[in-house]
Amino acid sequence: MGDFSEIGKDRPRVNGEAKARGEATFISDISLHNMLTGKILRSPHPHARIVNIDTSAAEELNGVEKVITYKDTPKKHVDPMGLNQDWFILAKDKVRFQGDEVAAVAAVDEETAEEALKLIDVEYETLPYVIDPEKALEEDAPLLYEDKGDNIAFEYNIDKGDVEKAFKESDEVISERFKTGSPYQAPLETFNCMAKYERNKLTLWAPLQDPSKGAKLTYARALDMDPGKIRVKKPFVGGAFGAKLEYPQQLICSLLAMGTGSPVKMENTREEDIMAGNPRTNMTIDAKVGINEDGKINALQREVYSSNGARTVYAPAIMATACYRAETMYRLENVKSRGYSIYTNTVPRGCFRGFGNTQMLFALESILDMLSEKIGMDPAEVRRRNLHESGETTLHGRKLGSFAAKECVDKAVEEANWEEKRENKKIGVGLANGVHVSGNRNFFPAFDGSTAYVRVSENGMARIITGEADIGQGLNTVYAQIAAEELGIPLKKVDTAHVDTDIAPYGLGTWASRATLHGGNAVKKAAADAKDQLLDVASEILDVDKENLKAEDGEIFESDNPDNSVPFEEVSEQAMFKQGGGYVIGEGHYTPDTSVPEGGGEKKWNPSPAYSFGAHIAVVEVDEDTGEVDVLEYIAAHEVGKALNPMSVEGQIEGGVLQGLGWALMEDIKWEDGKIVNPNFSDYVLPTAVDSPEIKSIIVEEEDPEGPFGAKSIGEVCLDPVHAAVANAIYDATGIRMKTLPMTPEKILLKLKGKSLP
Amino acid sequence: MGDFSEIGKDRPRVNGEAKARGEATFISDISLHNMLTGKILRSPHPHARIVNIDTSAAEELNGVEKVITYKDTPKKHVDPMGLNQDWFILAKDKVRFQGDEVAAVAAVDEETAEEALKLIDVEYETLPYVIDPEKALEEDAPLLYEDKGDNIAFEYNIDKGDVEKAFKESDEVISERFKTGSPYQAPLETFNCMAKYERNKLTLWAPLQDPSKGAKLTYARALDMDPGKIRVKKPFVGGAFGAKLEYPQQLICSLLAMGTGSPVKMENTREEDIMAGNPRTNMTIDAKVGINEDGKINALQREVYSSNGARTVYAPAIMATACYRAETMYRLENVKSRGYSIYTNTVPRGCFRGFGNTQMLFALESILDMLSEKIGMDPAEVRRRNLHESGETTLHGRKLGSFAAKECVDKAVEEANWEEKRENKKIGVGLANGVHVSGNRNFFPAFDGSTAYVRVSENGMARIITGEADIGQGLNTVYAQIAAEELGIPLKKVDTAHVDTDIAPYGLGTWASRATLHGGNAVKKAAADAKDQLLDVASEILDVDKENLKAEDGEIFESDNPDNSVPFEEVSEQAMFKQGGGYVIGEGHYTPDTSVPEGGGEKKWNPSPAYSFGAHIAVVEVDEDTGEVDVLEYIAAHEVGKALNPMSVEGQIEGGVLQGLGWALMEDIKWEDGKIVNPNFSDYVLPTAVDSPEIKSIIVEEEDPEGPFGAKSIGEVCLDPVHAAVANAIYDATGIRMKTLPMTPEKILLKLKGKSLP
Repeated sequence: MGDFSEIGKDRPRVNGEAKARGEATFISDISLHNMLTGKILRSPHPHARIVNIDTSAAEELNGVEKVITYKDTPKKHVDPMGLNQDWFILAKDKVRFQGDEVAAVAAVDEETAEEALKLIDVEYETLPYVIDPEKALEEDAPLLYEDKGDNIAFEYNIDKGDVEKAFKESDEVISERFKTGSPYQAPLETFNCMAKYERNKLTLWAPLQDPSKGAKLTYARALDMDPGKIRVKKPFVGGAFGAKLEYPQQLICSLLAMGTGSPVKMENTREEDIMAGNPRTNMTIDAKVGINEDGKINALQREVYSSNGARTVYAPAIMATACYRAETMYRLENVKSRGYSIYTNTVPRGCFRGFGNTQMLFALESILDMLSEKIGMDPAEVRRRNLHESGETTLHGRKLGSFAAKECVDKAVEEANWEEKRENKKIGVGLANGVHVSGNRNFFPAFDGSTAYVRVSENGMARIITGEADIGQGLNTVYAQIAAEELGIPLKKVDTAHVDTDIAPYGLGTWASRATLHGGNAVKKAAADAKDQLLDVASEILDVDKENLKAEDGEIFESDNPDNSVPFEEVSEQAMFKQGGGYVIGEGHYTPDTSVPEGGGEKKWNPSPAYSFGAHIAVVEVDEDTGEVDVLEYIAAHEVGKALNPMSVEGQIEGGVLQGLGWALMEDIKWEDGKIVNPNFSDYVLPTAVDSPEIKSIIVEEEDPEGPFGAKSIGEVCLDPVHAAVANAIYDATGIRMKTLPMTPEKILLKLKGKSLP
Repeated sequence: MGDFSEIGKDRPRVNGEAKARGEATFISDISLHNMLTGKILRSPHPHARIVNIDTSAAEELNGVEKVITYKDTPKKHVDPMGLNQDWFILAKDKVRFQGDEVAAVAAVDEETAEEALKLIDVEYETLPYVIDPEKALEEDAPLLYEDKGDNIAFEYNIDKGDVEKAFKESDEVISERFKTGSPYQAPLETFNCMAKYERNKLTLWAPLQDPSKGAKLTYARALDMDPGKIRVKKPFVGGAFGAKLEYPQQLICSLLAMGTGSPVKMENTREEDIMAGNPRTNMTIDAKVGINEDGKINALQREVYSSNGARTVYAPAIMATACYRAETMYRLENVKSRGYSIYTNTVPRGCFRGFGNTQMLFALESILDMLSEKIGMDPAEVRRRNLHESGETTLHGRKLGSFAAKECVDKAVEEANWEEKRENKKIGVGLANGVHVSGNRNFFPAFDGSTAYVRVSENGMARIITGEADIGQGLNTVYAQIAAEELGIPLKKVDTAHVDTDIAPYGLGTWASRATLHGGNAVKKAAADAKDQLLDVASEILDVDKENLKAEDGEIFESDNPDNSVPFEEVSEQAMFKQGGGYVIGEGHYTPDTSVPEGGGEKKWNPSPAYSFGAHIAVVEVDEDTGEVDVLEYIAAHEVGKALNPMSVEGQIEGGVLQGLGWALMEDIKWEDGKIVNPNFSDYVLPTAVDSPEIKSIIVEEEDPEGPFGAKSIGEVCLDPVHAAVANAIYDATGIRMKTLPMTPEKILLKLKGKSLP
């Protein structure tokens, strides 16, 4: 790779100044003329039959424009995964979780809307409920969907090799049960949206991660509309972390806009966001691992009981990921997985940075430490002996391009002074690994590509138009760097349009850590195409063969005679006039050679073009009087292919680690009597800067053959191993093996006192 | 040409239903949150020095957000033609016409804004003024721009051949003076706009004919801004007729939005629109024509005194057109023109259907009738003997592709029963011809092309994206027909996006009758490009060579085996997935081989790719007691290349004829004591349906080599000869030669009584 002007350089966010100045426009900054406020009446019960709804008093309230219930909806299922038809826009007959959407109101202001909610008279007949996924499988458990006969929303099995035989042949086998919690994504901006319906066309402003796939296609189905009549506009997004995918509020808002003819805006309170915002799936995992004296992992067996919540958003796929993802980093031959996504009377479970992979890593990486101790081998060495290498194909068919996993372990160990610290009895050190995809074809088998346009205006400004969503993670900065590098112009001459599905290409969106690799490839190709068109024009202006031209620093010039040059702006203008006023538009299409399983999960398949790896080491001190864990230091070594913007990669790592520490040590939505007892930031406590250890990010580069300039994902893998690293460090510090998240002081103290957890 | 599905078919407007239902969104239908209302303080004097402006009382009024005067503007000239630096956004030092913009206010509502205007205290020192262009040339005329030393805004001369010699050699010579009036374009929707300024970016919603050229480029210069920071959005337009080009209200609105940070909307009252809305240039024309006994026109000499109004919008070019356009239809060798665009203390003069050509046709076509009588030849025959034919190049260099002029005259004469009616003494018949361009490179020499994109969505909808403006004339219907024809899909599967300069290609806009030919060629090419891409995909699906595929009625099929077919929608969807979510986007660029004069108007040049012709015959009866002219019947034969939508062509002809009749018989802005006395629809009377004769439209087709499917312009040529045809008919009925427009009953009665006009 040659010298770069932009790629591999630390660059602050291109929209950072607008955000710092308060000029960036989020949904809450947009108000339309005659806009109404929408509010949702939510179920107070975890499970109840709706006997009657009387909306008449609410409808009569002055300032109320519309009240809707199930009967006012198109009565179509939402079903974002195309799997279970268990989700209507508003509850039909039954409510299945506290927070379930029963009715909605559009009124002239928030106060009136809230007053109207109080006037809606819903007669409920409460039903027995179940919160815990394992209990939901019991014979006499209350059924969420009576017709189904059980509470299993989805089942997923894997059988590879012969685990029974492999366990028998193993020198050591450990089987343990782990439980993960239900943390909330906690974006600064809660779910919100605005809808307008004019001339049979719905315009929806929403901070979506997937404006085209999620909103346009899923919502069109649910609203029984031609997708061509739905326009989704994504302004700035105040954080998403997986939460901001398909969501009933946006459908309800659309129906209110359609019903009133006025624009309607809705915004979750923090309570609503926690109570009904698709948090992480909690899993109970029975994991069994067999290992040889030489450190080779012989067999892995797991049973996963995962909470689907009260309806199906993405929990089945999250559970399935827990059943197979770890094999992408460790060489395994014998694997058995039994997975259940189980209906419970809790908030529907959705995507959260790390998907289902990270829950399983808590189990697997904890057991690997336990086995390392049993065979008397350095846990880092046990990992090294099992890690895949670049170019290998995994048990399930994943084709690893770059995969410098061992180098990550080595660098983390070196940076941590691993061996020295392991000797130190006052502190604990724990290592855990994580792996992630860069995109995942499973969710839209038709393709997993990306398209971008780079439009060069007559003033030499390059605009990137893409359907992929910057959700606050810095995507547009990286895209701008890619385009600026390709075009040979300064970063400030590039901007990226907000996603607008009426303008942008269809984009699958920002999830499965796909946006940098997929969209980046498309942007790179589009910029190269635009440059090629511009060089044709420059060739005429300078009277130099195109092959002898270079573009750098906003000039196009003769390679051997740089004085023979023309500004990029001038070439842009002339190019436009030469094509009858048409801007130069470069197109870039990228479609990876990925595949989806045919005939179930037994076959080999490769859902992602590239795979990222990280090795984490937590250094902790445990207060034996309070049970409090102080994370003294945290080392995270990640192989990201090529770091397009190292500052941004480090930002992702730091954010992911801190978010992981929150889950590891303090965050969990809690239910009592079927109801959430901590739906606010007083009771649901997040880590702050004060709680953050020094995080040492180590970037390992090995250019991936599939990535733009060799880059692959970082967004999720940086969270994946955090709780396991902390659990292993706590064990190293105290000899206490924590198997339930979050690892709160209370739980640690109980364990330190030799008591079992409640 | 083969069989067409859409081309050449009568098709109602694609947006007709939305308009009929009131669902089409015009500026007046758009309201933004916290929007302010802007109002302009206009000069009550035709000419005055501004001694002082005190805005303090207005600024203190509750609800007033901003008051601006010249000192709050960027102090740059507007200068849309790039010719005279005589136009600031708000008046500096002097006002030069009643209605001149002195100050502006943004307030919470219209009432407050109007109240604030009253509180602005302007101290004027009134100055002598001049309304009439010839008087403005007199030695002691008041000067509008003292520095200039005279009132000549622009002078234009042509000398070709030897007119003196040619007049001497002519059998008959007539020299006459003609005066045309100042009609107002009278669109249903007055000038209005809305502006918003956010994050250093100006968004302007305006019903502009030329969003890119006029608004983006001219306004950027006047506002001292990077054009890339201006976004212009054109919603539906309620008529334009040449009026809706660059206009100070939009600049003032932009400054108010920039000054307040709030969206600002402004709307002219009808009074403001008439008083300060750039109506048609009135001309005094001294025309002299020499003819031979055989009907050959030997020489044409003209002096044109044209009112520029108080500042330069487009009047100089309008005047110049009067000096040369007629030669595009008649073979001439000896021509002398002296033209003056003269500052007067009247409203600035702008474009109006027919530009400056139509004024001259009133003079020329009247004199040709007078000369026909002198040489005793049928006036239709005199025209026939001088008309150009297809493929000829004119005196000034215009290259005529199709030009079936004689066929138009023949068909009009036949339809009118010309000879029989000429014998009928109770009625009068008059013939006049007109010619027009299809685009005009003079106004943007860099290019005169057009670009369109045709984007095919996964649901098979084709969207046309262009910078050319549908201003109510039906452009988008014709574009949709072109795209539907090329793609082989039904018309309802095509839509056209409203012009948005952030999205659309740079478009020169709708003026000089250019939009059908220029934009139509671009749309045709773009659709062909999109189809080509789709056929590649269909070829794979059907396993048929691309060459053997046909696209018709929404299906793509094997030519020899139509059962082997695939729906257009399916091909569209598969094409999108094949390119990573990228829609199929066809690009079409059209740039005609036109030219601009180098070294002044003496050289030959060809500013338009095609020229349209029309022959009109008016049949009138004149009430000798009242002077009233009753137009009994009107025949208009036009050669339009190919009528893409005959119903729409007829609509243009009918509209043009009726608008021409208004100018011919009743419409004129009138001044008394330097002030307009009829700035409203009570006193400025327009023809209505009741005034409309039966208009017989005859479409003559001769496919033009430059036009899309052979089409060329109709929008302006259909108005060009109307007043001359009526004047000739009045003469035929009464023996009275009317030489002043409008030919009101009062004037005719005076002439009938043998009196001279005042």
